[in-house]
Amino acid sequence: MFLCRYEMGSGPQYGVINEGKVYRLNGDPFDVHAVIGAYEVDLAEVRLLPPTVPSKIICVGRNYVDHAKELGNDLPAEPLLFFKPPSALIGPGVSIAILPIMGEVHHEAELAVVIGKQGRFISEDSALEYVRGYTCANDVSDRDFQRKDGQWTRAKGFDTFLPLGPWMSTSVDSLDLSIRCEVNGEVRQDARTSLLVFSIPMLIAHISTIMTLEPGDVILTGTPAGVGRIIPGDMVRVTIEGIGTLENPVAKRVS
Amino acid sequence: MFLCRYEMGSGPQYGVINEGKVYRLNGDPFDVHAVIGAYEVDLAEVRLLPPTVPSKIICVGRNYVDHAKELGNDLPAEPLLFFKPPSALIGPGVSIAILPIMGEVHHEAELAVVIGKQGRFISEDSALEYVRGYTCANDVSDRDFQRKDGQWTRAKGFDTFLPLGPWMSTSVDSLDLSIRCEVNGEVRQDARTSLLVFSIPMLIAHISTIMTLEPGDVILTGTPAGVGRIIPGDMVRVTIEGIGTLENPVAKRVS
Repeated sequence: MFLCRYEMGSGPQYGVINEGKVYRLNGDPFDVHAVIGAYEVDLAEVRLLPPTVPSKIICVGRNYVDHAKELGNDLPAEPLLFFKPPSALIGPGVSIAILPIMGEVHHEAELAVVIGKQGRFISEDSALEYVRGYTCANDVSDRDFQRKDGQWTRAKGFDTFLPLGPWMSTSVDSLDLSIRCEVNGEVRQDARTSLLVFSIPMLIAHISTIMTLEPGDVILTGTPAGVGRIIPGDMVRVTIEGIGTLENPVAKRVS
Repeated sequence: MFLCRYEMGSGPQYGVINEGKVYRLNGDPFDVHAVIGAYEVDLAEVRLLPPTVPSKIICVGRNYVDHAKELGNDLPAEPLLFFKPPSALIGPGVSIAILPIMGEVHHEAELAVVIGKQGRFISEDSALEYVRGYTCANDVSDRDFQRKDGQWTRAKGFDTFLPLGPWMSTSVDSLDLSIRCEVNGEVRQDARTSLLVFSIPMLIAHISTIMTLEPGDVILTGTPAGVGRIIPGDMVRVTIEGIGTLENPVAKRVS
């Protein structure tokens, strides 16, 4: 099943996508009592929003061997965690905004996990029961601030630095999916999720030893090799097998 | 005015405190149309919750000269930012939970700023217009994970690692307040907010060049010198002049 969040003028709604049509969801995707309502509108006519409103977004650094190497880093012994703020979220089609103060800004295609129910001290064996679905993410990062600041808060925390969507897939098996990033049609990142150093169940178990995961929370699982610069005028597409394509233009913003 | 969030069995409410009594707020403290309702209950009878439900919590490291020195660090040229997750929040009286996997856990008394309205690219001159109030915080930190992990996500992100409260003060002038931390009655931290390296208006302006601040968001302004270990059985009190005292016991948690 494909679940989306969208807007049609009367505020955000959740919906179920089927054969190019959106059916309104009465409730939210994290409520087991939510029921699928009547046909609402053609998918082409809605403005898609990030498919979840997370209380927190936990990201994993250096979780593909080749990407750790390309930036000259060792593989971490445990998952390397950082946060992105919800204010960084944008949906498909919205521009990644480049400000004059920024340095070299990179795309990072990532598989995002959306949590379905509250949990802490989750075992690896039961971890996938806590997943509501998967979506595409772009962990946009300013490499200059990342090198300079120590903490990655600014480098990865700017408004628009987290495109997420276009919807979540609830039925895909995340173990071995193709993940790709294209910039202006040129393939920059091309890998498979089977190459993750720390698996999704392992990440969920590990993170939940630290903090309670809430319905709607997002885990970004790390980016494969091939990261590179994006500049105003570029079009970035993140495609994950079984999910879809998340497309965002890059634009200059003066203030 | 003192604004609180509390629970009395029927879910969280916002309230106004006056002379030991709580008056229910119809609406939330970030809604200009909220009105103060009838007398509800004596303050002593409610369970106080963290006074805000933030979409994000932005923290500032090394923002007092003496504290930067005591951990052997230079002063940063710009504010050093990191996030704590909302899942770390606890209210007054709730235990800070020490897990077997943790190392040396420290208290860090801090003045917390609660944002009142949405803003980006806020000028220093207008920054205080975006503040709804001030409260006491304890940026509990595991020094072993902080040294080991690089990113401070785990060291500062555990559940219960952010006591906040007991309420917010909307009328205090934050420029020069006494801030103190006592453990089991012994004064460990004792400073004044006038010693902040980066002032509150400067912090708000700086953070808002990166990300949109939302009503309810929290900025932790950094801790003064005197941080030290807390262990199960301790009682930690953070007191800020014109606000009040935030008191939390420390307890062992096995899982």
